[in-house]
Parts: sequence; structure tokens; C-alpha cells
Amino acid sequence: MNTKDINKIKEIAGEENVILSEEERHCYSYDSTRLEHMPEVVVRANSTRQISDIFKFASAEKIPVTPRGAATGLSGGCLAVNGGILLLMIDMDKILDVNPVDLLIDVEAGIITEEVDAEARKHGLFYPPDPGTVKTSTIGGNIAENAGGLRGLKYGVTKNYVNALEAVLPNGDIVNFGTRTVKGVTGYNMVDLMSGSEGTLAVITKATLRLLPVPPAKASILALFDTIEEAAKSVRDIVSGGVITSTLEIIDKVTINAIEDYLGAGLNRDIGAMLLIEVDGQQGAVDSEAEVVKKVCNSNNALSCRQASSDQERDEIWRARRAALSSLARVRPSTILEDATVPRSRIVEMVEAVNNIAKKYELPIGTFGHAGDGNLHPTILTDMRDKKEVIKVEKAIEDIFKAAIELGGTLSGEHGIGISKAGYLRMEIDKGSYEIMKRVKKAFDPDNILNPGKIFTDL
Amino acid sequence: MNTKDINKIKEIAGEENVILSEEERHCYSYDSTRLEHMPEVVVRANSTRQISDIFKFASAEKIPVTPRGAATGLSGGCLAVNGGILLLMIDMDKILDVNPVDLLIDVEAGIITEEVDAEARKHGLFYPPDPGTVKTSTIGGNIAENAGGLRGLKYGVTKNYVNALEAVLPNGDIVNFGTRTVKGVTGYNMVDLMSGSEGTLAVITKATLRLLPVPPAKASILALFDTIEEAAKSVRDIVSGGVITSTLEIIDKVTINAIEDYLGAGLNRDIGAMLLIEVDGQQGAVDSEAEVVKKVCNSNNALSCRQASSDQERDEIWRARRAALSSLARVRPSTILEDATVPRSRIVEMVEAVNNIAKKYELPIGTFGHAGDGNLHPTILTDMRDKKEVIKVEKAIEDIFKAAIELGGTLSGEHGIGISKAGYLRMEIDKGSYEIMKRVKKAFDPDNILNPGKIFTDL
Repeated sequence: MNTKDINKIKEIAGEENVILSEEERHCYSYDSTRLEHMPEVVVRANSTRQISDIFKFASAEKIPVTPRGAATGLSGGCLAVNGGILLLMIDMDKILDVNPVDLLIDVEAGIITEEVDAEARKHGLFYPPDPGTVKTSTIGGNIAENAGGLRGLKYGVTKNYVNALEAVLPNGDIVNFGTRTVKGVTGYNMVDLMSGSEGTLAVITKATLRLLPVPPAKASILALFDTIEEAAKSVRDIVSGGVITSTLEIIDKVTINAIEDYLGAGLNRDIGAMLLIEVDGQQGAVDSEAEVVKKVCNSNNALSCRQASSDQERDEIWRARRAALSSLARVRPSTILEDATVPRSRIVEMVEAVNNIAKKYELPIGTFGHAGDGNLHPTILTDMRDKKEVIKVEKAIEDIFKAAIELGGTLSGEHGIGISKAGYLRMEIDKGSYEIMKRVKKAFDPDNILNPGKIFTDL
Repeated sequence: MNTKDINKIKEIAGEENVILSEEERHCYSYDSTRLEHMPEVVVRANSTRQISDIFKFASAEKIPVTPRGAATGLSGGCLAVNGGILLLMIDMDKILDVNPVDLLIDVEAGIITEEVDAEARKHGLFYPPDPGTVKTSTIGGNIAENAGGLRGLKYGVTKNYVNALEAVLPNGDIVNFGTRTVKGVTGYNMVDLMSGSEGTLAVITKATLRLLPVPPAKASILALFDTIEEAAKSVRDIVSGGVITSTLEIIDKVTINAIEDYLGAGLNRDIGAMLLIEVDGQQGAVDSEAEVVKKVCNSNNALSCRQASSDQERDEIWRARRAALSSLARVRPSTILEDATVPRSRIVEMVEAVNNIAKKYELPIGTFGHAGDGNLHPTILTDMRDKKEVIKVEKAIEDIFKAAIELGGTLSGEHGIGISKAGYLRMEIDKGSYEIMKRVKKAFDPDNILNPGKIFTDL
């Protein structure tokens, strides 16, 4: 980009919204991966019209534009791989409307996810998707990555709560996809195509999100098992027993020991696995579902199976889960959090495969995650400064992906492909699908100016 | 198409699968609209490979191909507008696999929707989407139209239950979209793009569908009201009271009288509207939700509010609803069933608008439908042989669409655009969205051979 381009961008975006200093640009050069790419200019977006004007200029001049929310992503989706303009969405963070009859909330894309939920709760409603980064990530980023979270089994993922979107296409067109109605089949389902498109098709500026009534009751249960097989069998039996839990988390032995090292919470270091289970709904339903859960765990030889009898006990149960990643992160200098996902029925095999990979490469790998939806987080504990170990880590990651796909699973349950997994995409996606995805990208972005370098390696 | 083309199609598809006689082709020239288009040749699809080969030939020769399931569609989606090949999917109707732990069923696209549900119920599971044509329509057609039904409010629509698809692209490529996992963000969300694409992007050959455990209990409630406003107010209060009913149907006075004429079931002809409500789940939840529903209806001056105490009483309650369309169809020679949909909070205004349109054009219009999700079915009772009246009907339809869109609604909640509503699409869809949808169509089908003449009027 030359001075003329920069001046034009200042003219379009407003000089006060254009960041050029190297120090400041550096702050926007990384995300939650270990990758780094420096944008040439950072633009603070403040209106849909302004974004549209930027795109009209960028598409005319073939300047790359990379949208960025809170940069909590784990696949590099918001990094300006080809330089150009980094479009910072966090100033567009307003709540525009809440309608408790239609169960809808209208927000700007840069709002923090937790604030959407907080606003909903003022009306007895809640926003179900709860990615781990709910306190820091933006709704726009959540939609772009189709973020998941702990409540996936019962409540689904981000895409299940997006009714309508305002977005800006790479050619500068402002579009409104979707409807304010529960049902709507007018034209193609572009809203869902945007979900998980990783900011490569359009920049989301506003969203109409679906809310649900807050369940009046819930119950938390902690079950400990000698073996991870017994825990996984319980997961299967709970689901096939007709109970769809709101949360069904598993933590393996490596992770339990890391948590105990960190918290000293008195966890039994010898157990093979623990399950953390929550059911919610009307009190009567919660009571009967909690009974089913406890019966299933006990019939699978649970060492103990305890239902929290107070909010304090509930918090204690969940404290261990919340500490999982930070506990693992203390063990060695670097933590590689994967999200290979398998069908629920293949969890035992996946955990075994991960344990074998850990042995093969002599790498500690802790596994925890959303067992109810087969979305595990094998976490490799390593030291990325050690070049020899980096090679082992990369091989281990590839083996984890292979194992997941062989078990009928997927490369990524909720983190996205971005830069991190682009090289592996064809392991899962057949040639025809890959080619048609590229043609869809081209239909939106013929010059590849929007978030280039993501998902596809050969555009 | 010339004799050479026909011979080649016989060679590819197998002679026994090719239908040429005018009488038989005539059977495949109509659907559930009043439209008719004659295909040049009908091919009975019997494998994904065969379909792929047909497309390779058709795309080379630029011959139109129109997929057809059970032809229950209400927008002309399966009619061979430009002649060419009609691809009959109903022989591909096998159940391939059921997995009660993963809550998944694998089927071929031509299977009848009710058979999917019946298979699921053998395992204590069910397939939630329930379009009115559940006994006759195919899963492939349901997915192509993103079919809705009575349970939309609580359970969503077809797209919410499609995990993965096998499909054939217009160029003959066989693709596998989606995953067998609850979460999956590898590549673009092509599965959801297929939902509601009306058979214009790819031909769906297999589907992996999500199932749910059968709720152990349910309750049906019938509430009668003096005015439709009180009924609609009850709908709003039930939802904002935190109860998401599995079904929440409304029937207006015109329809009640038609049903009474037909069934003689002793319905009170003077009432303004009735609500038919079902809640389901664990027994405890059903009991408390049914109480909320009854309380809300009574506080909105329900003339009566009765909960069915036996299966027989339940069937009686639903008998009236099931008879709604056939009762209206008896009144005059032709029935035009619309599905304009509004946000739940605007139902009263929509019913008023429909009543005003009925007065303006002196046409009887009965309204019933899925009040819980704002998906009403204003049904115009007319005589399409009367050319003068046809003009009035067309104006009334356009007015209904305008009213729905002005109230923040949509042209079509669940029937699709097809041929019937293609001319109205731009009333709702902005120019940028329309153009990008056409570019997506071109990305899949550059020569416009797959199901041409649908959705877009200018391809």
C-alpha cells in the first residue's frame, strides 16, 4: 500500500479511525494461536456504511481486508496474512433491540458474547451458545467461526441461534440475510452459509439472534471412574437412556493430575476419568433426569457420583473443569489445544488413540472436553522453543487428525480451519466439495481480497 | 432432446429406468400447485453413480435436469419448466443405518419422511420435523425445501436435523457435505446451504439426520376465544411466560365454520378463534407447563380451556386441526394455501391484514396455522376457472405478501419460492443479496441446467 492508498483510507474511514504506528499495529498482529502477521493499516470500523466504502476502495485497488473481533480465535482466522487492512470490529458493540415475545435480540457484531447473554437475562431469557471465550469474544467472531462450547449437546452451536444478519460483501454491497421469523425459506439460506465461513465471504456487521427462556432449575453431578472406558460408556448410556444433558464434560487422568497440582482441591489422582454433568429445565424434569444420570453412572461402576446440593457445591464441581486448560498450561511452556471431534459413540477409541499418540511421540497430552458431543480437546504439553520437539508435535497433531477422521469425526469441532488447519483440509474434504467451496468463495470474493490465506491453500 | 440424446440416457440410466410415453410423463408434469410442465423424459434414479453419470452427460449437452421426490411441494419446485430430464428420486428409499448413541439415522433421499420417524421410534427416538405432508413427502424434498411443520417453535425445521449429505453437483461430482458429529466447522457450512436451496444447487442422494429421544409425556390443550386478538395475546404470553410449546396452532372463525360444516363436530360457530396447544417432555415439566398455558389462556378471557385427559380426547382436539385445509377446500372449487410468515409478536396485525384483504377483494380467506412461530396459512377460497376472480386472487396474494413483509415477516415460511413466488422475491430480498444468491447458483451450476426456472426470474 502506498501513501496515496493510506490517505484515501483516512478519507473514507475518518483519520481518527486509522492506526498506522508500528507499535499499535503489532498489537493487532497476533491472536490466540502462536501465529503472527502484521497488518499494514488498522481501521476501526464504526458503521456499516464506512465498511462498505472501505470495501469499494479495497476491491477496486485489490487490497486485502481482514476482519478482527476480539482475536480469541484458535485457528488464525483474524490474522492479516497478506498485510493490507485490518478491520477492527470491536467499536461496533451496541445492543439494538430485545424482543421477549419474538425471543430475538438485535446487536452489532462487535459486542462481547457475554453482554448479549446478560441483556437477555434481564428479560428472563438467555443466549445458549457458550464458547470458552464467552467473556471476551465477539458475536461476529462467534458467528464467523460457528463457535461451540459446553452446551452443544442440548442447545447446539452458534449457527442454531442466528436468525438474520447484516453483512458487507467484498464488493461493498450491504446485504440483509435471513428473517425475523422462526421459519423462513425465501431465497438461499445465506445466514447459515455465513456461520463458520471464517470471515472469508462477508463481514458481519449486525446480527439478529434467537434467545430461549432461562430454564427454572438445574442440577450438577460429578462422577468419578476408575477407567476412562467406564466414563465414556456412561456418556453413551445417558444419551441412549433418553437424557439430553445441557453439559456433559469429561476430564482424563493427565488433566486431573494437572488440575490437582494447580488447585490442590483434593482430587483423587488415581482415578481414570471424571464426568461433570448438568441437566436443566423444569424442576420435575431436572429431578427425574438427574436420577437417570446417577443410575447410569453407578451401573457403570462409578467410584462416586455426587449431586451438588448448593450453589457453592456446584461452583466447586465446575471449578475443576474451568481450571483444566490453565492447569495443563502450567505443566510445560507451550500448550497446543486441539479440537478434533468424533461421533459420541467413538469417544473411547478416540481417547485411546490420543494416549497411543502421546506414547509414540513421548509427549504429555491431556484430554478433556465436551464428551456429550464428542468434541474433545486433546492438549499437547510442549516447548515450542525446542525445534526437535516441534517436529514431533506436528506429527502428533497430524496423527490426532487422522485418528479423528478414521473414527468418522472431523478436523475441527469448533475452532475452525483458518491458517492452522488449512494444510489438512483435504484429509477430510473430498475433491468435489473442496472445489465447490472454492467456487463459492470466488462467487463472493472474485479477487480474494477478503481474509485471504484462510481455509484454502491454493486460491 | 433428439433420439441420440434419448438413446444415450437409456444407456446411462438403464433402459428400464427411462420413461418416454406421453401418458406416463403426464403423471410427472404436475405437483401440489396448480402448475403443469411436461418433462421430455423421466429417469428413475437408482444410484448416486447413475445420477452422477446423467449429470456428466446433461452438463456436456446442456440438458435441463429437474429432481422430483413425491411432488407434494406447494411452489412448483419439482416441475420441469424447461423440459429435459425429470429425475425421479422415489426408488432411492432405503434406511442405511440407525445409531441410537450418536442419535443419527442414515437414509437415501427418496425415503418417505414418516418412515424415517417410524424407524427412529423403534429405538425410542423420533425425527422432529413434521411437515403436513409427512406421510407422503420425501426427505430429499423436505431438505430441498427446508420443510417446516407444526413443531417448529420448539423443535425447529428440517435444516436443524440434517448433519451430513451426499449430493451430486450439476457437473456430476459426488460430494459429501457435513459431519457425523454434533459440532463440525471444517470448510463452509454446505449442508445448511443445501437446506432450502429447492433442488437448484445439487441433487441430494443421501442424508444423515439427527434424532431426539421421544419425550416421555405430553399434554394437549384446546382453548376457545371470543376474539382472535385474545388468542394471539395468549400466544405471546405463553412464550414470554417461558413456555416453549411443542405445538401452538391457531384457527380463525372462517376456518372453524368450514370445519364445522365438514365434520359437524359441535364446534361453537360464534367463537372468534381457537388455539390448540401441546407441550411435551418429562412428566413433571409437562404438568407445570400445562398449568402455565391454562393460566395464560384464562387470564386472556378464554371462553373455555380444556386439557385432554385421554388419548381419545387428544385425538378429538387434533381432529379439527387436521381437517382445517380439507374443510376449507370443500367451500369453493379452488384453494390457494399461502404461507406468509410474520414475527410471533405481529400475528394479530397479520390476521387483521388478511381479513381486510378478504373484504377488499370480496374473497373468503380462512386463516389457520402455526401461531407459535408466526407461520400462518391464509387460504383463499376461490374458483380458478373464473378468469375475473383469478385476477382478484392474484392481487390479494400480492397484498398478503406485502402485509407480511411490512410486518417484518417473509414471503414464505416453509413452502419455498419455486415458480409460484419467484416474481415476488425482490419484494423481500435486497439487490445485493439477490445478486450474490445468483452468483452462488452460478458457482454450482454455471450453465443453469439444474432445476432451471426456479427462485430467480432472470438467470
